[in-house]
Parts: sequence; structure tokens; C-alpha cells
Amino acid sequence: MRVGIIGLGLIGGSLGLALRRLGHSIDVIGVAKRPESVADAIQRGAVDQASTDLADLAECDIVVIATPIADIAGVMERLAPILTGGTLITDVASVKRPVVGWARQLPNPSRFLGGHPVAGKERSGLKESEAALFDREPWIFTPAEGQDVRPFDTWFEILRAIGARLSFMRADVHDQQMAYLSHLAFVVSAVFAETVQKHADAALGGPGYRGMVRLAAGDPAMYEAIARENQAALVEAIDRFDALLHSYRQRIDGGTRVKDLFGGAVHATR
Amino acid sequence: MRVGIIGLGLIGGSLGLALRRLGHSIDVIGVAKRPESVADAIQRGAVDQASTDLADLAECDIVVIATPIADIAGVMERLAPILTGGTLITDVASVKRPVVGWARQLPNPSRFLGGHPVAGKERSGLKESEAALFDREPWIFTPAEGQDVRPFDTWFEILRAIGARLSFMRADVHDQQMAYLSHLAFVVSAVFAETVQKHADAALGGPGYRGMVRLAAGDPAMYEAIARENQAALVEAIDRFDALLHSYRQRIDGGTRVKDLFGGAVHATR
Repeated sequence: MRVGIIGLGLIGGSLGLALRRLGHSIDVIGVAKRPESVADAIQRGAVDQASTDLADLAECDIVVIATPIADIAGVMERLAPILTGGTLITDVASVKRPVVGWARQLPNPSRFLGGHPVAGKERSGLKESEAALFDREPWIFTPAEGQDVRPFDTWFEILRAIGARLSFMRADVHDQQMAYLSHLAFVVSAVFAETVQKHADAALGGPGYRGMVRLAAGDPAMYEAIARENQAALVEAIDRFDALLHSYRQRIDGGTRVKDLFGGAVHATR
Repeated sequence: MRVGIIGLGLIGGSLGLALRRLGHSIDVIGVAKRPESVADAIQRGAVDQASTDLADLAECDIVVIATPIADIAGVMERLAPILTGGTLITDVASVKRPVVGWARQLPNPSRFLGGHPVAGKERSGLKESEAALFDREPWIFTPAEGQDVRPFDTWFEILRAIGARLSFMRADVHDQQMAYLSHLAFVVSAVFAETVQKHADAALGGPGYRGMVRLAAGDPAMYEAIARENQAALVEAIDRFDALLHSYRQRIDGGTRVKDLFGGAVHATR
């Protein structure tokens, strides 16, 4: 099986490493923008071969678009004349509604299935990639209404073999879930980090502080693109977080009624 | 040197383990409320000897109060008739202004110095204790105005030997710092965890989600006591966080102006 990966950053690189460790008969063909990334990916063993030329993916059974979300529509456009009708296409972006929309312009939209590995680290880039990145983490697919996903069965099997926990849902449901689980998380981490920087000395922080600012150290360009693409759901999540924060604030300010304040949160984590 | 530790939970137990590994001539005498904790602490090697009787601390060079903050005033009262004038007393509570106030009732207040190891884990209790808990973490002392801290020099040396990074500040400054670095952190984590529980499926969360709810899994009784004791500073910290969250929300809702939104936060973490 020939798997193409476009974009050799943290996710693309980790996927290449994971696939090549499977020991299946999988060939990984990488495509990156910059020649240095191509050389680096080969040297790290994340790909069997790599280039800067999308045309090298012509014979792939499946192509995984692992570029920044802002580049996906352009990549699809340039892929269209290259791929045969048989090649499957998927992606790894953490917002799915716009991606599924762009995929409707493909010559054969039924060969596309949006995907999202809910995995990552606070640092991005190929140098951070690791074969175990997807192990025991969710990998969500978002079929279009009525889409037959059986052509992707072998791909699902491969992802399960690298440890991913697969699930399937509508793109808008996915985006609403991620607005809370992922996008609200980095907004809250960023706001916390900036608040602390303005009013306290981070050198006095312990492990609790460090855990809460970890996400804030991530790639701001990626966060900005995600916030733009999932704007409405994220704003709603922020508003709901904010309403609950107000309730906590009022109870703390009330003093005597602080009892049982944290019980709900503790319950939520068990 | 004889070191007494009152309260054999995560902090008291870890301190005992760390001190006993130093290889200095340090005897650790533990006192716990429950006989089971006494037996457990001896079995785990966190103490040289232990009992449920504060009177066993009579001959100590220094006594560390490592009980929940709500018990500190009572412990001080019961310690007063037991200790000779020579015994130093310190504590480990994460709010210092009330503790320093209670210490003024001691027969010899100049022998007390408030302390706070900024260390911990999301799970508490003796079973979670580890000798490396304080390694490379801050340990803050809050001398009273004009207090001569030289009697504690040997204690400082010992704490540096177990890896702690010592600093000194006024109790109110400490409490204001911790309102941001620690207490706001667990409020934000708790509010995030509860918001997600209400509106999303936590099983779809990845490492980013898990990192942000880690603090929320902590001891609610401890959080409630801290929120009560550091109420004004914590409410102020929440209000400042909230003001910045609003600004993020408006910029995300504005869409086009989302650029550079996360730059400040990223800068704050580097």
C-alpha cells in the first residue's frame, strides 16, 4: 500500500514514523514545501521517499493532507489533476466543516473523508514527531451525509494498528465538540498565561502553573486559523465557560457558600 | 537534628522521604491524626518514628506543620505548651497571611516562619508522596516585618539540599502571587472541566484536554479552604482573567482581527 503524506510537521511526521513501524507492506511517500523538510524527513525515517512535488503522489492508494488548515483548499486544487479517480484522500485538520466544504470541489468527492487525530504536543514541527503520538488517542472521521466509508476500511484498520481510537460523527458535531475539548482549552490556557504574566512572577509557579500554560506555548498561527474556522462554536464555548466562571466567582466572593464549590469539577474528571 | 512533621499527607510524607534520603544526621518524627497513617508512614520509610501524640515532638529542633490549613490554628494552640522555647516552627500552607496571623498567638512568635513549597500533584495523600517532589520547585518563606530569619539557616540549607529553590517575601505579596499562579489555576481548571462535562464528550479529548483538567481532579476540600482564606486576592485574579477572556472573545468574534491573538500568550510562556 502506498500512503502519501502532504505536510511533514508534527502530525505528518509522526504518522509517517508510526506507519513505517507497523511492519506492514506500507510505502510512505512524503511531500513538503521546503527541500530541507524533505531531507529531514528522510533522515529521521519518517518517509520511504519524499520530494517537494505533489505529482509524486500520483500512484498512491491514499493521500493524507497534513498541512496547516489554511493551505488545505489550495492543496486539494493542485491534487485534483494529479490523482487518479481511485486515490482516497483524507486530512488531519482539527476543524472539519470548512474542510468538508472544500472537498466538494474535488473531481470525486466521495473519495474524500475528513479526519482528525486528537493528538499533539505543545511544540510543533517534524523534530517533535514520534511514532507513539496517536497511541490510545481519539481519531475522528466526519463522513458527508450518506457517504459510504467502506473504501476507507483498510485505512481504518491501519490507524487502529497504530493505536488510534476511531469514531465517526457529523462535521458540525465534531467542530462543536472540539470547540470545547480543544479550542476552548487553548484559549483558556492562553488567557491564563497572559494574566499571570501581567500580574505575577512565573518563576514562583509550580507544576500546577506549568500544566495550565503548556497549551499556550503552542503555535499561535495554528490557533488563530482554528479560531477563525470554528469561530461561532468557539465563541459559544467561551460564553458558557464565562457564565460558569462568574458563578464560581460569586460563590467565592460570597465566602461562606464556597463549600462544595469544586465538587462538580472533581466529579467531572472522574 | 530532629525534625517533626505534623500531618503525613502528600507534602508531609514527601518531605519525610526527602529528608531521610539526604543521608545527613536527620531524625524525622511524624505525627498524624489516625493510627493507620502512622503505621503507613513508618512502613513507607517517610519517618524514623511516628505517633498520634504531639507530645512526642517536645525535643525537636524544628516542627513542620503540614496539616490542612483549617487545622493549623488548632495545632499551634496544642503545640504551645509542649515545645520548649528553642524549637523552631514552620508550615507548608499555600496561603500565608492567615497563618502568620495565627502564629502571633504562639508563646514565642519569633521562632515561627511561614513557608510554602510550591509543589504538589493532582492526587493527595501519603500514598502519592515522593522524595523528589520539591526538586527544582519554589519554596517560599514569608518572614514577619523585621523578623530575623537566621535561626532557620540550617533548615534553609536542608531544603536547598533536597532541591528546593528558596525565596522570601511578605505574606500578603505571597498570597497575591499564589492567587494567580496557583489558586486561579485550579479555579480555571475546575470551570473548564465542568463546562466540558456539560457540553461535550470527554472521551473525545486528547492530551491538551487532559492537561487542562488535571488540577480539577484535586482535593475539593483543600481548594475550598484556600479559596476561603485567599478570597479577596483570588476574586481579583478571577476578574482580571475574565477581563482578558472577554477581550479574546471579542477579537475571535470579530473574525478578521483574530491575527496575533495568541502572540502575547506564547510570549508569556517563553
